[in-house]
Amino acid sequence: MKRIITISREFGSGGRSLGKQLAEKLGWKYYDKELVKQVAEKTGFDPAFVEEVGEHSATKSPLSYLFSTPGTPGVMKGMSAADFLWIMQRNVIVNLVKEGPCVIVGRCADYILRDRDDVLNVFVHAPIPYRAERIVRLYGESEIAPEQRLKDKDKRRSINYKHYTNQEWGMSQNYHLSLDTSVIPIEKCVEIIEDLIQ
Amino acid sequence: MKRIITISREFGSGGRSLGKQLAEKLGWKYYDKELVKQVAEKTGFDPAFVEEVGEHSATKSPLSYLFSTPGTPGVMKGMSAADFLWIMQRNVIVNLVKEGPCVIVGRCADYILRDRDDVLNVFVHAPIPYRAERIVRLYGESEIAPEQRLKDKDKRRSINYKHYTNQEWGMSQNYHLSLDTSVIPIEKCVEIIEDLIQ
Repeated sequence: MKRIITISREFGSGGRSLGKQLAEKLGWKYYDKELVKQVAEKTGFDPAFVEEVGEHSATKSPLSYLFSTPGTPGVMKGMSAADFLWIMQRNVIVNLVKEGPCVIVGRCADYILRDRDDVLNVFVHAPIPYRAERIVRLYGESEIAPEQRLKDKDKRRSINYKHYTNQEWGMSQNYHLSLDTSVIPIEKCVEIIEDLIQ
Repeated sequence: MKRIITISREFGSGGRSLGKQLAEKLGWKYYDKELVKQVAEKTGFDPAFVEEVGEHSATKSPLSYLFSTPGTPGVMKGMSAADFLWIMQRNVIVNLVKEGPCVIVGRCADYILRDRDDVLNVFVHAPIPYRAERIVRLYGESEIAPEQRLKDKDKRRSINYKHYTNQEWGMSQNYHLSLDTSVIPIEKCVEIIEDLIQ
């Protein structure tokens, strides 16, 4: 019996919409921004920083190393901010799932919860042209071409996942179900997963 | 509208059973051994050789290079038996799909038919312990431990796929749908795909 669904996703593929709709239909909790909020509260970091580094922490960022200098006080001593956040995020996830059935989007939750057998791991993806059109429609244009934004974001998620899990992001074998939302509409994906859970 | 389903699969994950059941339910043609037979007829090779090399042709095999020696007559001049088989197999697949809706298991059919938009590409996988139990139950014991048989076969399929497609075997992004049969039973997989087609 599955009572936790993790959703990993390529940027712009609709993983977040899928997760939200699914949680709503099942009457389960949905964690995404909520997770960020909790980690921010526990660590004292700015939520925007947690959001940014939480999924891209292994990517080179000057901020990630701010705290790795010797002499940093307290629990973070000798640890990069990225690794510290990873540990806090892991703890928050491990504790949150004890509160009842839920859907968690991103944050390597599939890997963090790998020893439980009540978790269904889903990966959501779509070809670049489909996602490019979708992010422009949803988030608007930006200075960087949408194709480049997708590639950058996917690359950072992939590096982060590899760094903390030693697994390949997007390999079918890491998930119970992988779905291409350009061919299987999000509503149909929701239906498939809902049916698997019941 | 999809009228071709390709199924790529980890050895022992049940991809062939899934394909057969699906073809039967949809009333579509099923190609697997049939493909081997056709390639064998066209090339004059022994069907067992086609079966073996057809999916593992890029793996080092002394037979694969028998025909690469200069002076080999006819169409195969200067071409390895493996590459020759790949081309023949490709032609057989491209022609077979013209004959009507079908399910094709293996043989990089997802890649070969990549320019068509009426193809649904499925990848089927499962963790090693599940597959080990399954192959012993279905095919019996052998001198080599089932875990080793799985690893060898997967490795060869993976190398072959990479060699001829320049893509990673098992990456979610190459398929529209990936399914773990240890969590989603084969009958349920059939149901999901049948529903997507209709």
